[in-house]
Amino acid sequence: MRKYFLSAVFTLTSFLVFSQNEDSVMIKKISDEILTNGKAYDNLRQLTKQIGGRLAGSPQMVKAEQWGLQVMQASGADKAWLQELMVPHWVRGGKDKADALFNTAIQGSRNLLLQKKSLDVLALGNSLGTGKARLTKEILLVNSFDELEKKKDSVKDKIVFYNYKFNPTFVRTFQSYGDANGYRGSGPSRAAKYGAAAVIVRSMSHSTDNNPHTGSLRYDTTLPKIPAVAIGLQDADWLSNQLMNKKIINVSIQTNGHFLPDTIGHNVIGELTGSEFPDQVITIGGHLDSWDPGEGAHDDGAGVVQTIEVLRVMKALGYQPKHTIRFVLFANEENGLRGGAKYAEEAKTKNDKHIFAMESDAGGFTPRGFTFGGTPEQLKKVQSWIPLLYPYGVYEITNGGGGADIGPLNRNFKIPVVELAPDSQRYFDYHHARNDVFENVNKRELELGAINMAALIYLVDKYGL
Amino acid sequence: MRKYFLSAVFTLTSFLVFSQNEDSVMIKKISDEILTNGKAYDNLRQLTKQIGGRLAGSPQMVKAEQWGLQVMQASGADKAWLQELMVPHWVRGGKDKADALFNTAIQGSRNLLLQKKSLDVLALGNSLGTGKARLTKEILLVNSFDELEKKKDSVKDKIVFYNYKFNPTFVRTFQSYGDANGYRGSGPSRAAKYGAAAVIVRSMSHSTDNNPHTGSLRYDTTLPKIPAVAIGLQDADWLSNQLMNKKIINVSIQTNGHFLPDTIGHNVIGELTGSEFPDQVITIGGHLDSWDPGEGAHDDGAGVVQTIEVLRVMKALGYQPKHTIRFVLFANEENGLRGGAKYAEEAKTKNDKHIFAMESDAGGFTPRGFTFGGTPEQLKKVQSWIPLLYPYGVYEITNGGGGADIGPLNRNFKIPVVELAPDSQRYFDYHHARNDVFENVNKRELELGAINMAALIYLVDKYGL
Repeated sequence: MRKYFLSAVFTLTSFLVFSQNEDSVMIKKISDEILTNGKAYDNLRQLTKQIGGRLAGSPQMVKAEQWGLQVMQASGADKAWLQELMVPHWVRGGKDKADALFNTAIQGSRNLLLQKKSLDVLALGNSLGTGKARLTKEILLVNSFDELEKKKDSVKDKIVFYNYKFNPTFVRTFQSYGDANGYRGSGPSRAAKYGAAAVIVRSMSHSTDNNPHTGSLRYDTTLPKIPAVAIGLQDADWLSNQLMNKKIINVSIQTNGHFLPDTIGHNVIGELTGSEFPDQVITIGGHLDSWDPGEGAHDDGAGVVQTIEVLRVMKALGYQPKHTIRFVLFANEENGLRGGAKYAEEAKTKNDKHIFAMESDAGGFTPRGFTFGGTPEQLKKVQSWIPLLYPYGVYEITNGGGGADIGPLNRNFKIPVVELAPDSQRYFDYHHARNDVFENVNKRELELGAINMAALIYLVDKYGL
Repeated sequence: MRKYFLSAVFTLTSFLVFSQNEDSVMIKKISDEILTNGKAYDNLRQLTKQIGGRLAGSPQMVKAEQWGLQVMQASGADKAWLQELMVPHWVRGGKDKADALFNTAIQGSRNLLLQKKSLDVLALGNSLGTGKARLTKEILLVNSFDELEKKKDSVKDKIVFYNYKFNPTFVRTFQSYGDANGYRGSGPSRAAKYGAAAVIVRSMSHSTDNNPHTGSLRYDTTLPKIPAVAIGLQDADWLSNQLMNKKIINVSIQTNGHFLPDTIGHNVIGELTGSEFPDQVITIGGHLDSWDPGEGAHDDGAGVVQTIEVLRVMKALGYQPKHTIRFVLFANEENGLRGGAKYAEEAKTKNDKHIFAMESDAGGFTPRGFTFGGTPEQLKKVQSWIPLLYPYGVYEITNGGGGADIGPLNRNFKIPVVELAPDSQRYFDYHHARNDVFENVNKRELELGAINMAALIYLVDKYGL
């Protein structure tokens, strides 16, 4: 809390000496234009409903790249192009299946009835499947990595079920995600180390439904690459209740995930060329790829259409940026981050002078702030603009980095970076799940995000950092 | 913007001299309890799914009162009772219907084809219906009251179509509502003054769907009480486009709204008796009634279950309030406000010393602040607590009054009042429409509202105002 207090005091003091009338007029124009004539919502409808989920290497991703290029041009980019790169090509390979098999006593008899309950699962991204044969093994419940270590002698040939709870008491839900997502990322290999046959991971969500949430794992290449699935919360609770009651449960899993050879993908780039400093570049972006079960509406269709909306509003208002602004739809954030790496690498090779980068990859929800990565002085300067953003919902800018896709740029150029920080309460209801669809994005919340992004880009372009 | 700046500076300065550790620990306990064991969402499911829409006088309202009383008791109230009052009893009386009738030229012929297009409408609350016979008249498009005045000589015997737009450029959507809702409230009588036969009002919403949004009108009793309906936005746009193209359109309306005799209704009241000042009362509430087309989930099921959750969390944490706290589910907010009036009247008659009141009636969305009604000194004191609420999403407390149900209490006792101010972007997508249902409320957003309400009640109980 103290942190917020100090930064806020600075913000407000600097505001007093900050001539802001012209800027607040400009930002009001941005807001009025987007709230009245905004195209972000219609663009999102096209991306989600006409193209859908678009994992790197998929035919949908190819369509999305063409769509992105065309929308960049239609929105008024001075130039627009595709930046080629190689992307990993993981495919799910079919419907993921899992059944719990267990015995129930038949009333009035000594016999047992074998029961089967179908579980709602999704193979983790980058996981290798069971192949055509089902894998059927006894389940071992493990509530944490500590418990895995304690039970390590019982792990061999079992399916380890990580039932680590998404912590509901963190108000900012990305904290719960940071706390839990190691079970998805490194959980499979940590179980494989003790001989596990497969892994089931409780979904990283506190939703009230049973949709499983996928996402990438990272195999330790020195260990067997065992199959791994995410399970919906209701099924996870059922399974853990059964196991807590000392029931023996076998689970039969069939998954088909595998890698095809790396293939060609593209970052989609649009540019407004700077009027004063054409060789100094500000980058703003979101990632075009998404997981396959849903439509990638919040993750990260929202960031994509907000990025394009910032371009559109600048053209619509006749705003001529002083610096060159690049609008980038990054390839392959979800299971490789090759798009962000390629973009930063080429910028370095060509010696493009980057001065700032912004990303939107936390959903199309009502904005509350930005997270920032840079020096304390730069942070103070950005915070001094909060009063200008305040009428549009942004009231805090805190340390916290700029997002995955612009991470490599940040490392290569040591430039300040920011990421839009919308309200996070609903994000993990949809994240990497089949309900991350257009219908779950609100038009005005999406637009308010774009307004604050455009306003901050305008301020950085005008005043520098 | 300046206003925010000054109040924030005061807030933060006072924070420095404010010993707050014990309070932040208590508020964290409130938050953890609600986010972990909260019952607000389950209670809302019961109220919306088992009872549904519950207008004053309806059988559902009777059920809701019994449900409320039982939940108050189950949540640990020291006492709980029903406060009887008389409520108006308006009924919709059947399905509201409207058809647009217009001629289209038949291709290659001089003849005209009579076309019919069904419009999605809802009679306005408290409006009188057309009766069994349909009312069929020519439509007159009027985009504002100014335009009505200009066209007043053409109004006679027409159906006036108020197509006043819900302003998208106000970021805080209640501003758009304040700007537009006169067309619903007084529009019918203003048209009746010039001899209109009926009124169609563009819904007060910027949703992307076609659901009509109802709500109360207020007839001028000196003028004919003409039928009046709200129309969905897509139909409103279609209708205005036709009329702008000089088409003549008749609309045939059938509505059946009428009043039955006033009937008995109840405020539901639960109480925690104060340990130090049992005769000093803090009231917190929401309204139990709702419009009939939906389930009254955001309006105001959310406020109802948040109010009960504040009671539940105090009992769960063993918190003994110093003052008596009354948890009130008000009757008849939507079309009469008799519940709030009765509560204030009885408090005055019994000479109950009220010191503070809080309401939640702006939806179960992620909280951003509170609006306040009271003296500048009281406002400063409440604002000095913002740093304690900040971790839970509340960052501003502004002048703006305390909500309709506690208005009479405020007037009778001159006490400070507050209303929870959640994010307002989605509110008018659902307000008074058939999609104000349980599925459109997010569990954690609802809970965060209850957390901030409980925290502020705790602070007022401890420190006074």
